[in-house]
Amino acid sequence: MTQSPTGTAPAFASDNQASVHPDILAALTAVNTGHQPAYGDDTTTARLRDIVRRHFGERAEVFPVFNGTGANVVSLQAMSERWSSVICPESAHINTDECGAPEKIAGLKLVTVPTPDGKLTPDLVEAHATGFGNVQRRQPAVVSITQSTELGTVYTAEETAAIAAATHEHGMTLHMDGARVANAAASLGLPLRALTTDAGVDVLSFGGTKNGLLLGEAIVVLNPDAARGVPYLRKSSMQLASKMRYVSAQLAALLDGDLWLRNAAHANAMARRLADAARAVPGVEITQAVEANAVFAVMPRAAAERLRKRFPFYIWDERTGEVRWVCSFDTTEDDVDAFAAALAEETSA
Amino acid sequence: MTQSPTGTAPAFASDNQASVHPDILAALTAVNTGHQPAYGDDTTTARLRDIVRRHFGERAEVFPVFNGTGANVVSLQAMSERWSSVICPESAHINTDECGAPEKIAGLKLVTVPTPDGKLTPDLVEAHATGFGNVQRRQPAVVSITQSTELGTVYTAEETAAIAAATHEHGMTLHMDGARVANAAASLGLPLRALTTDAGVDVLSFGGTKNGLLLGEAIVVLNPDAARGVPYLRKSSMQLASKMRYVSAQLAALLDGDLWLRNAAHANAMARRLADAARAVPGVEITQAVEANAVFAVMPRAAAERLRKRFPFYIWDERTGEVRWVCSFDTTEDDVDAFAAALAEETSA
Amino acid sequence: MTQSPTGTAPAFASDNQASVHPDILAALTAVNTGHQPAYGDDTTTARLRDIVRRHFGERAEVFPVFNGTGANVVSLQAMSERWSSVICPESAHINTDECGAPEKIAGLKLVTVPTPDGKLTPDLVEAHATGFGNVQRRQPAVVSITQSTELGTVYTAEETAAIAAATHEHGMTLHMDGARVANAAASLGLPLRALTTDAGVDVLSFGGTKNGLLLGEAIVVLNPDAARGVPYLRKSSMQLASKMRYVSAQLAALLDGDLWLRNAAHANAMARRLADAARAVPGVEITQAVEANAVFAVMPRAAAERLRKRFPFYIWDERTGEVRWVCSFDTTEDDVDAFAAALAEETSA
Amino acid sequence: MTQSPTGTAPAFASDNQASVHPDILAALTAVNTGHQPAYGDDTTTARLRDIVRRHFGERAEVFPVFNGTGANVVSLQAMSERWSSVICPESAHINTDECGAPEKIAGLKLVTVPTPDGKLTPDLVEAHATGFGNVQRRQPAVVSITQSTELGTVYTAEETAAIAAATHEHGMTLHMDGARVANAAASLGLPLRALTTDAGVDVLSFGGTKNGLLLGEAIVVLNPDAARGVPYLRKSSMQLASKMRYVSAQLAALLDGDLWLRNAAHANAMARRLADAARAVPGVEITQAVEANAVFAVMPRAAAERLRKRFPFYIWDERTGEVRWVCSFDTTEDDVDAFAAALAEETSA
Repeated sequence: MTQSPTGTAPAFASDNQASVHPDILAALTAVNTGHQPAYGDDTTTARLRDIVRRHFGERAEVFPVFNGTGANVVSLQAMSERWSSVICPESAHINTDECGAPEKIAGLKLVTVPTPDGKLTPDLVEAHATGFGNVQRRQPAVVSITQSTELGTVYTAEETAAIAAATHEHGMTLHMDGARVANAAASLGLPLRALTTDAGVDVLSFGGTKNGLLLGEAIVVLNPDAARGVPYLRKSSMQLASKMRYVSAQLAALLDGDLWLRNAAHANAMARRLADAARAVPGVEITQAVEANAVFAVMPRAAAERLRKRFPFYIWDERTGEVRWVCSFDTTEDDVDAFAAALAEETSA
Repeated sequence: MTQSPTGTAPAFASDNQASVHPDILAALTAVNTGHQPAYGDDTTTARLRDIVRRHFGERAEVFPVFNGTGANVVSLQAMSERWSSVICPESAHINTDECGAPEKIAGLKLVTVPTPDGKLTPDLVEAHATGFGNVQRRQPAVVSITQSTELGTVYTAEETAAIAAATHEHGMTLHMDGARVANAAASLGLPLRALTTDAGVDVLSFGGTKNGLLLGEAIVVLNPDAARGVPYLRKSSMQLASKMRYVSAQLAALLDGDLWLRNAAHANAMARRLADAARAVPGVEITQAVEANAVFAVMPRAAAERLRKRFPFYIWDERTGEVRWVCSFDTTEDDVDAFAAALAEETSA
Repeated sequence: MTQSPTGTAPAFASDNQASVHPDILAALTAVNTGHQPAYGDDTTTARLRDIVRRHFGERAEVFPVFNGTGANVVSLQAMSERWSSVICPESAHINTDECGAPEKIAGLKLVTVPTPDGKLTPDLVEAHATGFGNVQRRQPAVVSITQSTELGTVYTAEETAAIAAATHEHGMTLHMDGARVANAAASLGLPLRALTTDAGVDVLSFGGTKNGLLLGEAIVVLNPDAARGVPYLRKSSMQLASKMRYVSAQLAALLDGDLWLRNAAHANAMARRLADAARAVPGVEITQAVEANAVFAVMPRAAAERLRKRFPFYIWDERTGEVRWVCSFDTTEDDVDAFAAALAEETSA
Repeated sequence: MTQSPTGTAPAFASDNQASVHPDILAALTAVNTGHQPAYGDDTTTARLRDIVRRHFGERAEVFPVFNGTGANVVSLQAMSERWSSVICPESAHINTDECGAPEKIAGLKLVTVPTPDGKLTPDLVEAHATGFGNVQRRQPAVVSITQSTELGTVYTAEETAAIAAATHEHGMTLHMDGARVANAAASLGLPLRALTTDAGVDVLSFGGTKNGLLLGEAIVVLNPDAARGVPYLRKSSMQLASKMRYVSAQLAALLDGDLWLRNAAHANAMARRLADAARAVPGVEITQAVEANAVFAVMPRAAAERLRKRFPFYIWDERTGEVRWVCSFDTTEDDVDAFAAALAEETSA
């Protein structure tokens, strides 16, 4: 995709261009007293562990890390061997937007599966889980799905469970890149556990940054039998924060009450509002189901270029001219309405 | 070293167990308005670039990262080839405390040099810069020194310049792990540039976390001819923050005025105060020159164990019983005095 | 593809199941006198260098290695940076049959391009040479093509030159996996140089094993500006033979006279003979142009299974039932005729 | 060490500069009939498996590879995790002569232990098996010893067993780099099994090249519980020969009868003869116990330089002027006597 022009808010470029929720900054101040053991032996991280278990079940182990790529690549290493491959959609963040970190850091081979909507299915898993026992081939060890997907769609709990079943049948394990799992939960109206632990996900990359944190994601090992060496992999993969209380405090503030849900639900609602408005604009066509906080559309190319000068966003696919608009916890109804008005204006110009 | 007991402040375990300076938290709040381009295209990161150039010279390029290991390993990759080795003291953080990240992430081989005080010399560089042209051997490409060292000692600008000369003579380049470079500058009473750029350092890992940040270090490329691919290496090594303004804002707050120097100078002063008090205690012997913010000492083992229950710190060397006490920007004179009193008490008990 | 049943000759499973040409064994005996410097400083390897330059031009540098994967992966490393990607057909050996060695050994990311016939085109290169300057994306550095392809097709010299032009236009370089480049040269009736050096190939993996050697391939750097560090990469990638004279002697015996050409031309002729016979069998359809030493066909599945019990070969594509038959330097006309008779028999059974 | 001048036989530079034993070449011819399944599914490799089990016990699994570095690095990967370290003598081939392959291919960190004679001891293992559970440190997983050592010394079976006990006590496993294990067995007058399987070695790199093969080593997994994934690691580490029968045939010829022992015993005898003669030369001092096929000595530097012009050998240590002389299966008594005469001549010149 083409880089967005830099610039003035409001932007619909990405939820990682958003600000930090005030409650998160307050949580940083709250833990800023005296010395605390480093590297996760602090009381805040201990508290986070309890909170995470409330959401994901008693077996869950949480490992805060810096960013989503870190959460994904440490998870995949812990779930695989040196000769493993990972099955994922072609559109997966681990394939398209991590500058090859899985290959570089872990030597993993990705088996990338074209999908129309960013979603794997049991049949697609089945079709690509091949070559077992053939030494010329990497051995499929992990299936990785993204929830909500990079295309703004959401797996139902049943869909995830079906993929988990197909995955486990082959002795593989299921990773979920949950950079926006809160948006998925909000969309489905389900607790986090229902679409992760209870659906057979083994390891989750839980995303905080795109949902209002300064920075901070967490590896959540839901099935301890499916991951080994996470503490060492986190450190040697350069994802271990020394002053970890300040990462854990953010995650705790997000998850202790319902901030995670309010932020996500709001972003989703703004995306729906935007999609509804866009659908009414002649010449604009929504291209993916709007199930989380992103809207994909095609529109006249020249109009898109004019619009991007006013509100930064990405051209998702240079060939088709498909665009992506992302809403955040801090996107307002006014932002959306202003954007929709500009969209109508530029499209009819 | 043995893990310190967790617990109550004040601690002398590490400057990475300290809190965050209030000005740093204030800086986070100050940039928390609206959307900003991600990944460093924001205005705060642009401002940081200017500030860094004021300190390090007009050719300096700054790349904020998450932590010290990240700064070091991205730097070393940018300075080396796939078949390179890195010469460093045996006590170097890259050798002892990064869980083998240089080997894992970059496939680098470290040539580790025993030193009594954590400091390389031109002669030691010379003695280990061997095997050029021999395909059985990794080709030495980088010399890495730590300033201040892991043993609390400091390279003078002249010492660094002499190492740089020996390094460059062999076509190698010089990396400085500056996790505590501010402490070194404060100790020497010199501007940062005098002990880095002007002393022939090619790439610097500039440390913020141990000097009062929440988290945040920076790769500072002082000699652009000595590093290539940093932007791609930072991303693929999982060290690229999406909401980078919040990392850059901390570094900018540290470096724009003299906060970096005040914090470091205070920590150094506390270490000197502690060393002075400890020298007066019978049975305690200071083992390294106290030139920055750390004090190394030997003391009766049982006394050390009793003392650690009251004030957390590390046993540095299990065999000799050598201990390490580290002071921070937030260590008070009262903290030091209380610790020194307890030291005297436990030692005479 | 499904593993072939093991067993009795003649087989059409692969040219790497063939024997060793008697002249090659004789060449081993010829150099078996006294001690010789190891690792390539021997007189036989020096002689090989001269022979290779006769074929590929005066700038060519030759580096014997153990196997094709070794030749490919060392070449790709020498042609790339730590943050590079390699564009190749989906059917490329580096993608399908090296158990992920490019990812594991070099951390490379492969950009795999679906093709009907195993051949890239300038347009396909153009379509996938994207993302330059985008730090989220690996930077395309190398295009890798296989000659003859894994599907038995051959690039004309003009086709290769056009790909080279498209490749170089983007500042990338062109690698040729020439595991069967001799078959391609024989097919085109051209000297090796015409389809490599003169067509703009930068680095060639020259194949010997499939053309009658015991083992032995060679990295041939045609454009020294396009590769760096090969001697160190060969050693650290575990591809440096100590008693190299015995690898070099084989390659020299193959290339000094016309053994390389006779072996390849014979294998090609046998494939054509087989294809001609197969085309006459009702129910058998040849699926790829037969331009080198391999024949691809679809035939009734049950017949294929019966036939494989008599003559080992691979099911190439489990889904379509496509089969692959490969001829070698030691395949006889009688072998082919016997196989063709059995094919007719089983197909009509 | 300094590269030896290239040149005329007889040489004492290395046993990898020797020729190939005629029986080995004969074995190649013997298997050169018709097609055979590739990658180890051939009958010769099956026969080798039986032979290896006769030597090493019924649980032994053999995996032929190309060279010693390959055998070592594949073994170490199979025995370790991504976060492991390997304890070895500083003089170990994996540390000094593999261009950092363990770091590059496997991301391993070597914990290198200075020793006077190239031999680890239980105490040295104990002293370096530290940091378990500390995430800043690689976790020691493997101890690697070389038999006979790079300094020509030999571990007794009891010494190996004691190291194995210390190793296993910490949950680690024991790797033996047996590039010259035949020389050790000949020296001790013991069957191979006594100093490997029965002494507690878990995985052995069995050396063939230095004992008369053209090329060929074997990973011999003695304890199947100590290694996993060898078949996939061998392939993805580029050590899987397609025409494997020609590697296996050599190893089978070496091990089926007593060729392995005769070759090694002869080389050892020649080394003793050389050492005896050298001891009689004034100004020459033998520096290591001569227990296998290598002799280490100090002698006047100018004399060494003159001698090397007549008989190639290596300066082992540039600083001390220590030299290394290696004998091979094809070293004759006349070679030794001529060398000893020249040694006396040049030393007294």
